[in-house]
Formats: sequence, structure tokens, C-alpha cells
Amino acid sequence: MNKALVKKLLRELQKMPIVDPHTHVRAHQPVATHLGDLLGYHYYTELSNSSRGQPAPLPDRLDERIDYVWPHLPDLRGTVQLDWMMGISEAFFDIPRKDWFTKPKKEVIRRAQKAIEGKCYEQRVWQRSNIRYVVMTNQFDEDLSALKDKRLVPGLRTDDLAFNANSIGRLDKIFRVKAGESLVSWRAAVARVFDNFRDLAMAYAAIGLPPNFSAVEVRDEEAAALLKRISNGESLDAQARQTWAAFALDELAGQCRRVNTPYCLMIGADRGVYEHGVPSGQDQFRCDAHLRGYDRLFNKYPDVRFPVMVVSDTVGLELATAGWIRHNVYPVSHWWYSNNPTDIRRELRRRLDVLPRTKFIGFHSDGYSLEFTLPKFNTYRLQLAIVLAERIEEGQVGGSATIEPLNLDGALELAERILLRNCGEILGCR
Amino acid sequence: MNKALVKKLLRELQKMPIVDPHTHVRAHQPVATHLGDLLGYHYYTELSNSSRGQPAPLPDRLDERIDYVWPHLPDLRGTVQLDWMMGISEAFFDIPRKDWFTKPKKEVIRRAQKAIEGKCYEQRVWQRSNIRYVVMTNQFDEDLSALKDKRLVPGLRTDDLAFNANSIGRLDKIFRVKAGESLVSWRAAVARVFDNFRDLAMAYAAIGLPPNFSAVEVRDEEAAALLKRISNGESLDAQARQTWAAFALDELAGQCRRVNTPYCLMIGADRGVYEHGVPSGQDQFRCDAHLRGYDRLFNKYPDVRFPVMVVSDTVGLELATAGWIRHNVYPVSHWWYSNNPTDIRRELRRRLDVLPRTKFIGFHSDGYSLEFTLPKFNTYRLQLAIVLAERIEEGQVGGSATIEPLNLDGALELAERILLRNCGEILGCR
Amino acid sequence: MNKALVKKLLRELQKMPIVDPHTHVRAHQPVATHLGDLLGYHYYTELSNSSRGQPAPLPDRLDERIDYVWPHLPDLRGTVQLDWMMGISEAFFDIPRKDWFTKPKKEVIRRAQKAIEGKCYEQRVWQRSNIRYVVMTNQFDEDLSALKDKRLVPGLRTDDLAFNANSIGRLDKIFRVKAGESLVSWRAAVARVFDNFRDLAMAYAAIGLPPNFSAVEVRDEEAAALLKRISNGESLDAQARQTWAAFALDELAGQCRRVNTPYCLMIGADRGVYEHGVPSGQDQFRCDAHLRGYDRLFNKYPDVRFPVMVVSDTVGLELATAGWIRHNVYPVSHWWYSNNPTDIRRELRRRLDVLPRTKFIGFHSDGYSLEFTLPKFNTYRLQLAIVLAERIEEGQVGGSATIEPLNLDGALELAERILLRNCGEILGCR
Repeated sequence: MNKALVKKLLRELQKMPIVDPHTHVRAHQPVATHLGDLLGYHYYTELSNSSRGQPAPLPDRLDERIDYVWPHLPDLRGTVQLDWMMGISEAFFDIPRKDWFTKPKKEVIRRAQKAIEGKCYEQRVWQRSNIRYVVMTNQFDEDLSALKDKRLVPGLRTDDLAFNANSIGRLDKIFRVKAGESLVSWRAAVARVFDNFRDLAMAYAAIGLPPNFSAVEVRDEEAAALLKRISNGESLDAQARQTWAAFALDELAGQCRRVNTPYCLMIGADRGVYEHGVPSGQDQFRCDAHLRGYDRLFNKYPDVRFPVMVVSDTVGLELATAGWIRHNVYPVSHWWYSNNPTDIRRELRRRLDVLPRTKFIGFHSDGYSLEFTLPKFNTYRLQLAIVLAERIEEGQVGGSATIEPLNLDGALELAERILLRNCGEILGCR
Repeated sequence: MNKALVKKLLRELQKMPIVDPHTHVRAHQPVATHLGDLLGYHYYTELSNSSRGQPAPLPDRLDERIDYVWPHLPDLRGTVQLDWMMGISEAFFDIPRKDWFTKPKKEVIRRAQKAIEGKCYEQRVWQRSNIRYVVMTNQFDEDLSALKDKRLVPGLRTDDLAFNANSIGRLDKIFRVKAGESLVSWRAAVARVFDNFRDLAMAYAAIGLPPNFSAVEVRDEEAAALLKRISNGESLDAQARQTWAAFALDELAGQCRRVNTPYCLMIGADRGVYEHGVPSGQDQFRCDAHLRGYDRLFNKYPDVRFPVMVVSDTVGLELATAGWIRHNVYPVSHWWYSNNPTDIRRELRRRLDVLPRTKFIGFHSDGYSLEFTLPKFNTYRLQLAIVLAERIEEGQVGGSATIEPLNLDGALELAERILLRNCGEILGCR
Repeated sequence: MNKALVKKLLRELQKMPIVDPHTHVRAHQPVATHLGDLLGYHYYTELSNSSRGQPAPLPDRLDERIDYVWPHLPDLRGTVQLDWMMGISEAFFDIPRKDWFTKPKKEVIRRAQKAIEGKCYEQRVWQRSNIRYVVMTNQFDEDLSALKDKRLVPGLRTDDLAFNANSIGRLDKIFRVKAGESLVSWRAAVARVFDNFRDLAMAYAAIGLPPNFSAVEVRDEEAAALLKRISNGESLDAQARQTWAAFALDELAGQCRRVNTPYCLMIGADRGVYEHGVPSGQDQFRCDAHLRGYDRLFNKYPDVRFPVMVVSDTVGLELATAGWIRHNVYPVSHWWYSNNPTDIRRELRRRLDVLPRTKFIGFHSDGYSLEFTLPKFNTYRLQLAIVLAERIEEGQVGGSATIEPLNLDGALELAERILLRNCGEILGCR
């Protein structure tokens, strides 16, 4: 590693503002109100449950969540997950990393809590992070009318409309309609959802999809029959649920086309696989999951942009090549289990080497609280700096007949492109 | 990166002659006649189509193809695909890379065109590339009788005989037979194809196969019935087409045994997946594609050498282990989507670490025009230099009780082995 | 590569004692008695068979095995497999690596044989390797009553109880029972096997499983019917065999729970794929193999620890995430085809970055003779040193708000944790 060069690049990357194109930040409480909000993040509770050797149920109280996680922190030293908490601690609590392992637990918690409860805490997080805006994950029936902060950009999560039978009742409730009566009424209700979010200047609509989902065509008659059964409260079998989801996916893509918003596919997680796990700590991907079940969808909606993020590492080149040949597929970032240095570095270099620089988005935090944006971006920035430094050196060695020379400015321009400009141009927000 | 060592290795690698064991170079016009031949290469048209955000049909006229691609070139800076065009520009047009982005379009085109139309252009490409020979991709009914240049080695592409119903009529036409009349006549016609290509000193026969193809055994009676239906002009369903292809694959392997030529399997591309794509820019692999459908074929023809190239990254170690234990499987090069620095480097190091040095072939260009051979080899050579330098350093650090010491000469001998000698010994040509 | 730092780390790693948690070392003859024992290791015979270009049957006599392998050794230079033999030669025979390629074959063999036949040879191997203990692979009916050396720890291999019909007769023989009479008697016999091995202080029970095995629930009635057919000598079809194996797997996990021993799953090899191969040189994995067929098993036995090793590279992150969220899954080492520098390095870095340091085991040799432990660990140690050096440098560049700083001592503590302490704590032996 050319440490001097990597350091130089990293320092410059750390000066850039942040756009965080996918988070779970809460509209009305973007930052934590308690250390247990942060240490209760599933990355810590699940690793604690895993470290313990025997499962234990996660307590509800925030201070008990701290107790749940605390004994396992030493075993997490050296992991990226812990780095995120430590980054928060250093940046926003002014508690150095080493204090967590040398000072009394009580003292660390007291100091952290004092910072969190401080008057300008939220402002400090925004400022020290240098965040321009973050995209949230909002349920279709979430009331965002009181949202004033333009830095919190709505993102319409559509999973429930495709996978959750209770969405019919929820549509009925917010619009005072009978969405389950017919496809016409369901479509009208869904259109109103999209109208609402368009008026809220959403960044995009998004949906999470299981591994090897197949986006088949479903006829209206078949969908109408399923809608009737769903609205009658019938419990559908797996095949029927999948058919409805495939139908809904098409309809939702059609809505995206209508209101001209991208449809972000978040592909690959099987939920609830590990039955002794903590909430959000029970999910896995499978390494044989491919993306070819979406061929028809991508072809059918040529005028919808599909940013795609994947949870598995094995599908990385397949996604890159979809972004390479298809005009409407945009690889996005490094998600969940693939958000680790090894997989970031490989995927990032691949994308830089084979994709038009306009065709992919660098990074998102997926954080549940605004504090996580900065340290997660820093993990990525370090890997980005390493990849760019290596690429600069290859240019110096190879010569311009072999490989495009890249200097510091060119590298930073590329970084700015994938981290900032592409969020605006692909997602169409600011 | 040990830049000095990588540079030293790269310079030495660049002095080596090139054998290019797989290309699509045209027998009677190996080099381009127009810049649009080169910028019309699917790597540029597909990336342009992808960059545009909305698909546009590819024009036929060569100058319009230049216009199609030109506006998107800046967004391709930093990609390997553009590096190949820039390598051509620097090596054969004497136009420096930077001129493409600073000089008027007209001027660049004029200078390129002037070079291409120059008297000794083809000779210059051969010489500056230092190419010993290239293997072509020839259709079974291609007339190569006028071919005089021994540096252009025929390669018999057999896809149509297995997958294309019109091959029956084409066999009839060239041999004035009725190939569809019976298995006996079909076999006789196919044997004549192989005799022809043997007499032309072909390097090998080759076939492209889709992901997860299963080379099952097919009885003669079943094949005969299918042949009858094909020659009657019936349109077969997918299953029947696959059965015929499996039968044909066996027969073609048998012909390879008869004339003692290797059978090169090019595995993993699904054609025509992206319907809005440009020609040759519509294909994808799938990351769950494995090679185990060929177990029976490899076992049945122990006296046929099977060089195998794969389009997916995920099958890399599986292919390496096939080359490791099987006496007749030879991993070949880095193909198509896997021909990028990340995947080259990983696969190359794996093969160097676990395979007998005689069991794999380093690189091929897959170029449609002779100009692409040099820059594509240069992309590979840079990665090879990086891998070898790292391996040399590991030897220096590890000591001979841990890892075989490797010096510059040893590294170059290894490179010469996989790039030159193995082409001769595995493929059996010169 | 920071050569000075890597070297420093490697030297320290090489001073550590070795615990080898999985081998095939023979209880009553842990070291070789003839050079043909070592050169007859399947890594050499299979690579020789593969190098030859045409298969040849493996001779039985040990000196003929040397002849079988010898001509191919030069082509194996630079591979890790040869490094292991060369490491043995340097460490235990005092024959430098280069002598193998410059001295007469006879002389090398004579010197090697003299070392092997020397009085203190076994003691020398133990001492120079600095091995604390190795875990063996013992058949359930293997007589270990004469085993005195506490450094040889039994490991109960249970494959035959699940996959081999002859296990019924073997149970009958050792316990003078009729194990096939009923599930009750089969269970009682299997319990006696586990009691025996518990009394022998086994490290763990283990089982090898094919790719994509599905550990489904099987009802007792169905299993009883299958047991009857098996004990009647009926040959079961593939589906019935798989059902019995799934049943047996559950039962064996239950026995592990009863005697409080881990159940080590060795996942992914298809046996006998390459019909012209030498013994143990006929097996392959498949790159689409995932681990999700074990979800039910892992959930059902929350109080059994499942160390898991995998033969394929593609399942690496999936296994890491199972270890990440599940409290009873422990990724183990780098097995077989994945035991090469490329795949070691990637997997190791991933595990260090995302797993609690208590949740995985660094390395095992899988050696058939004690001599292989040291050189195989050395191959791993070099890659570990490279990964740790890189991680130390990242810490220096990133700063503590981005990534945990790691110094030499911290890196060695981490190495000691995954190589030594975790063998004790996860496997529960010494």
C-alpha cells in the first residue's frame, strides 16, 4: 500500500460533503435520543447474540439493550461494525475509542448520554458529518406532512404493497376507499400513494425482494382473483403470494414511469431464516441468487431507471454487466453483508473498470440514525482511497498506451462523480 | 505495489511476441478499413447505448456509428474498454490518448482514417503488435481456400451445427448432399467439415454454450427422429433443441477425437437477453452457472483435449479445479465480462498457485479486428506483471521452506509458458 | 506489499505452536514410513495424472508411486501443493528445495528415505513443527484403545452412519447387536459409538456432505421403513438414500447434544465425478452450492456448536454471515480447493472484518501424515501475515475515527486467538 497516497486521497475524500442515498433515518427524530438507540442497532445486537454461544431474547428497554451488547464489545474489536460505533463516539461524543475498553462502563455511558442529550446534538451531527441530504425509507402510509427539513428526502418503500396483505386495509384507511374491491380501485389507491410521494419530492420508490425472485408477467384476471382473496382475508399459499407480488411489481414499476421516479430494487434477503435471532438479525442471502428473474421487467420498462443493490457478493459481476449493457440498470453501492472492505474493494474496482462513470452510485449508509452516515461513509472512503491509489499507481506503471493515466485530481473527480453527482443525476433529486 | 518491479516485468512482457489463440479476425481483411470498424466494436456501441439512458438503434453506416459512440467517450474514461481503443490510437494511429478529448472530433477522425488508409497499415499492425499468429473464428461453411497468410490460423466454430437448424441446408449446399436424410448422412457431412478444417491446419474446433448446459447422452434413435423434424423445417421446442444440441456436442467431440484437434468450450452466455440492446450487446451470464453438466462429456472423451473458457466470474475456482484434477480440461484465459483487471488478477493468481504450469492458457483477445490484440494483451500484461511482482515478493518474504522463490527470469519463463508455449502444446498449432 | 512488516509478522507466526484441528493422521503411525507415503498424497498423484495429458492408473507399490509422480514435479513448480512437499523436505529431510531439480532422483530419494527411517524421525517432526496436538479423523468402529499419545485427539467421522449401508453390519460387529432391527436398536448402537468417543475425549464429531444437501425433517416411521430396507440389503434409490441421510444427520446432531461435542460439517464435495482420476482425485464441488439446506438443522439444535468448513469459494460470504448472525455456526479454516492463497486471503480478511474474533477457526491442514501440518500452516501463515500487515497499514492511514488501529502485538494476539484459543474454546478440546 502506498500509504502516503492513500492518506492524501482519504483526507480529500473526507472533506467532501455527503449525500446518503438510502437510510432508515426517522423523519421526525433523525438522531438518537439514547445510547441504547445506537448500541441497539441490529449490527450490535445480532453480533452479541451470536457471540454469546446461546441465544438470548433482546430486551425492550434501551438501557437493557446496552447491557445486552456491552459484554461482547471486546470480541468485536477489529470489525467494521464496531468501527461505526467508535466513529460515532469519536465524532459526536468526543469519547476516544480506547476509553470504551479502559474506562468504567458507567462513565462511558454517562458521557455518551450527555452528548446525545446536549442542546445542539442534532445540529452537530449534521455539521460534523457534512451531510447535504439523506434519503429516508418511508412506508406508503407514513404521514410526512409535518416534515420541514429539506435535507430529509422521502423514499417510498413499496414492499408492503407487494408482499403484505395488510396493505389493502391500510390503503383503505388513508384514502377512505375500498382498495380490495377491484383492480381498478387498487390501482387508483396505489396511484394516490405515488402522487403523494411525488408531491413530497421523493428521491425514488424502492422495494426489497427475496433471492431468485422471478418477475413474471401476470394477467389482470389472475391478479383480480388474487386481490379478491386477499381482501377477503384469505391466507394465500407461497405460489399465490409470489404471483401477486410479481403482478404488484409490474404495477409499481408502471407507477414509477407515470410519476417519473426511479424504482430501486434491493435484492437478495431471505427474512426470518434464523429463528433464535434478534429482530433484523435473522436474515440471510444465498450465494446462488442471480438477477436473471428481472430480465422481463427491465425490458418492459425501458423508461424507468432501476437502481439495483444486492446483498450477496456472488452476483457482483452479473450486476455490473447489467449496468454495462442495459441503459436502465444502475448498480448501487455495497449493501448489508456485502458492505465490508473485501467486497467493497472488489466490486468498486470492477465498476470503475467496466462501467461508464455515470452508471453507478458509490455508497449509502443504510443507517437507522443519522449518526451512522459518517462512520459508514468513512469505512467506504478508506477502501475507495485504497482502490484509487492502486489505480493511480497502475497508470504510472502502465503508461498511456496501456491504461489511462489517473492523477489525484482525476481520482477525486471520479469520486465526486459516483458519490455526489450520480445521486443527483440517476435518482433525480437535487 | 512495487512499482519498479511491476514496471520491469511489464516492459519485458511487452517485448514478447504475441500468440492470440482466439479472435474474430476476418480471414480476408484482418485489420479495419474505417475508424467506424473499430469504434463500432460492440464494446463501444453497447456502452454508448447504456450511457445514453434511453436505447437508440445502431445505425449501419460506419461514420454514423462513430457519431453514435462519440458523445459517450468522456464517460468511458478510465474503463478498460476505452483503454483498448486508446491503445490502438497510440500504437497504430500515432494519436495520443489526450487528443481524443482535447482536439476537434473531425481532426481525430481524419488522422485516424489517414492512418488506416495508409499503404502499410496492416503490416504496421502486425509488426508493432509483434504477433506470431492469431486463431480465427470460422463458420463451418466459410470458404478459406484463398487464405494464404499462415499467421491467420483457422478455428472451426461449430455452434451452428448444434444450435442452428439452417446448418442442415448449409451442409447440403457446400457438399451437395442431403445431410438431413439420416444420421449417417449428417455424420458424413460433418466429417467432411472436419476433414476440410484439418486440411486447413485448424487450431481447434470451438463451440459456445449457454449457462448450465447439460451434456446428456442422447440415443441415436432419438437424435434421428429430431434430425428428421429439423430437416422437415419443423420448429422444435426448447427441450427438443437442447436434446439435439447435446447429441451434436457428443458427435462433434467425436470428430475432434477423429481428427485429433482440441474442442474448445466457450461457456456461459445467454443470448438476446436485453431486447433494447445493440447487436452483440444483449447477452448476459448468470452467476449460478456451473460446469458440472459437462462431467459426462469430459469422462467420455478422455482422448480429446477440452480448452474451456467461461464468461462468469463465479465459476473460476470450479474451472481451475477441473483443470487441476482432469487430464483433459485446460482453463483458458479471461473471457468477455470476466476480462477485467479484478477478475483477471484473481483467476490468474489462482491458476498459478494450483495448476501445473502446462495446464492453462494465459490470454486471448477475442478481437474482431487485428488492432485489438495488442491493447487487450497489454491490459492483461499489466495485471500479469502485478501478480508476478506480488508473487516474487512473497517468495522473498516467505523463504524457500514456505514458498518457492521466484525471480525475474523465473517469472518471465512462467509468462512465456502460459502465453506462448501452452498455445502450441495444448492447441497443437505451431 | 510492506515486505519488512510481513516478514516480521511471519517470523512471529512461525514461532507459535500449532494446533491442527482437522487431519487424517493415522493413530498408530502418525508420520510416513516411506517417501512414497508423502509423494503418494493425492495432491501429487492427481496433479501428475492431470499433467500427463492421458490418465494412467495409480500403482500400489510405494516406490512406483514415486515414479508415477516424479516426472511431473517440474511442471508443479510454483504451486502451493509442491510447496508443501518442499517444506517437508527442507524441515524434516534437510534436503534443500533446489536439490529436487538439480540432483539425481536416486540421490534425493535415498536422502529422504534415510531421514524417514532415522531413529528420531517422528520426534523430529513433532518438535520442528512445534505441534501441540492434532485432531484425527477416526471411523466409528476404529479401535483406539491402544492410543496413548495425548497429542493425537480423536475425531469421530460419522459419514458412514449416514451414507453407507455397510455401517449397520459394522455396528452389529463391534457391539454384537442387531442395529438394523429397529430405530431403537440403531439409536442405541449409535449412542454407544458416541459414548466411546466421548470417553476417548474426542474433539468433535464430523460429517462430509455433498453440495446443496437439504437437511429436511424425516418422520420416525419413514426412517424405520428405510432402516428395514437397508438392513435387508436392499439397494436404495438416490432419493431414499438422501432421506435416510437427512434422518441420520438429525440423529447424529442429537447425539452431539447429548455428549456435548460440536458437530463439524464439511460441506460441498461431490465424490467420484472424474472417472479416470486417481483415488481421492476424482471429486469436485459446484459453484452454485449454498448452505441454506441447513437452516432447519441449525435452528433445531441451538445447543449444538456447528463448526462448518466449505470446499467452494462462492459460499464464503454466505458462511461468514451464518457465523455472524447465528450463535451456533463457526466458520472453519480454508478447505481443500479453497485452500489456496487467493481464497485464503479473501476469506480471512472478510472474517476478520465482520465476525467476532471468537467465532471462527483459522486453519487446519487436512494432512494424511503429520509432516504436512507444518508446511500447510506455513502457506497459511504467509497469507495471514500479508492480511494482517495490510490491516495494520489501513489502521495507520485511516485513523481511529475510521478504523481500529492495529499494531504488531494486537495482530499477533488476533492470530493466536483464531489459531489456538478458538480451537480450545469452540471445539472444547484442551
